[in-house]
Amino acid sequence: MSGVINFKNCGSVLVTGASRGLGLQIVDTLATGGASPGKIIATTRNPASAQTLQELAEKHRNIHIITMDVVSQESIEKCAEEVHQLVQEEGLNCLINNAGINVVADFHTVTAEKMIENFHTNAVAPLMITKAFLPLLKQAASRGGAGDAGSMGIQRAAVINMTSLLGSVELNWGERANNFKWYPYRTSKSALNMVSRCMATDLESDGILCMAVHPGWVRTDMGGSAAPLSTEESISSVLSVIGGLTEKDHGSFLNFTGEPIPW
Amino acid sequence: MSGVINFKNCGSVLVTGASRGLGLQIVDTLATGGASPGKIIATTRNPASAQTLQELAEKHRNIHIITMDVVSQESIEKCAEEVHQLVQEEGLNCLINNAGINVVADFHTVTAEKMIENFHTNAVAPLMITKAFLPLLKQAASRGGAGDAGSMGIQRAAVINMTSLLGSVELNWGERANNFKWYPYRTSKSALNMVSRCMATDLESDGILCMAVHPGWVRTDMGGSAAPLSTEESISSVLSVIGGLTEKDHGSFLNFTGEPIPW
Repeated sequence: MSGVINFKNCGSVLVTGASRGLGLQIVDTLATGGASPGKIIATTRNPASAQTLQELAEKHRNIHIITMDVVSQESIEKCAEEVHQLVQEEGLNCLINNAGINVVADFHTVTAEKMIENFHTNAVAPLMITKAFLPLLKQAASRGGAGDAGSMGIQRAAVINMTSLLGSVELNWGERANNFKWYPYRTSKSALNMVSRCMATDLESDGILCMAVHPGWVRTDMGGSAAPLSTEESISSVLSVIGGLTEKDHGSFLNFTGEPIPW
Repeated sequence: MSGVINFKNCGSVLVTGASRGLGLQIVDTLATGGASPGKIIATTRNPASAQTLQELAEKHRNIHIITMDVVSQESIEKCAEEVHQLVQEEGLNCLINNAGINVVADFHTVTAEKMIENFHTNAVAPLMITKAFLPLLKQAASRGGAGDAGSMGIQRAAVINMTSLLGSVELNWGERANNFKWYPYRTSKSALNMVSRCMATDLESDGILCMAVHPGWVRTDMGGSAAPLSTEESISSVLSVIGGLTEKDHGSFLNFTGEPIPW
């Protein structure tokens, strides 16, 4: 399942929601891997309470913890300014929109407020964050990276949206539809998939790759203990997919194993 | 394009957003057609300002105008209670979630508020309205309608969501993606498609058909004057599709011409 994780040609990676779960694992795997990116920027709403992340940053000098509340425009913009100070003219090579929530509600318990809360964090926030970091992504893309200046990939600039198979409208049918009847979560991830596809079109002329990836069903606070994958297994596979992205993957929706998922 | 519009076996149809555009046309075409449903319930946020609808209701005694603001839970529930008084033990046969808005914004002008406003009206409201009318839909479904009690269709009970081709994530690519770069609208319609698919699963055991239909690009306030279809052309075709729905269309996403659209 896991391939070679090679981020050595990637100057900087920013991961949102890095205090726990998959976000923390991304930071951990990137920091401890053989070919670590130059800068790992880990954002979280409240760094003071992110103890494991703090301990990781003490061991690895390329981890930089910055505050970001993904549903606050002011916080997003403040974070972008701090990242600008950090990366300077090198820009940001890889933005991983990982922060997400699951507001569990079925047909009977769902409310407008629950739908909107999940939509805001999972679909709107990645859009507003990408907008705020666009100057830094364009800066990195214009430098061309280690490869061909016309090529796409994390050595240049990329926006990765952590989505879910549960956001696939096509697959939400029959046997599959009888599990996880989560209206707010499923809807927010379908919405994120559309946002991802829209952004791919708009970022293409700047040479910024944009795609959505499903990390699998993972044993996190969100995934629960019955999930088949450990965070290490999921993320080593996800980072292998991200590390190998090229033009052909622009605008795609891929499984953690690299195969395309229908919308 | 247009087929036979036959709603004579349909006791009651409720249409949201009936004061203008496609909603008004649905009411008009249903009222003036040769085989009109028993009751046409036209809801609008402000009946007092819906002059054309009021005039139509004066000419056709089976049109009933009821107030509903689709983003107000209190208003939705009050409307459901009034409809209950009107249809009594016959229940509601066909709910057409037609009300929708287009909060135009591209990548540069989009804000979180614009995304949430469009999402609430276009994706959340159809869900909350369907929940509120579920007892009336179940009542109609349990009576079986004119056909086989085990069959699905508007003679029994159906929820129709007016969606858009612009909500198709798959089709939002290449040439097509360069037009209508409307983040709030596209995202809200992808979200509605997921809501529609989720509801199809949940309503199936009650015998309530649920699907999403694209009305085409129509000359309305929303569609603009350059659109190829008149409201009459669009709606005669849409109502012909709705009138002919059976089990095989449950959970589908159909064009106004009746062909399936990819998600």
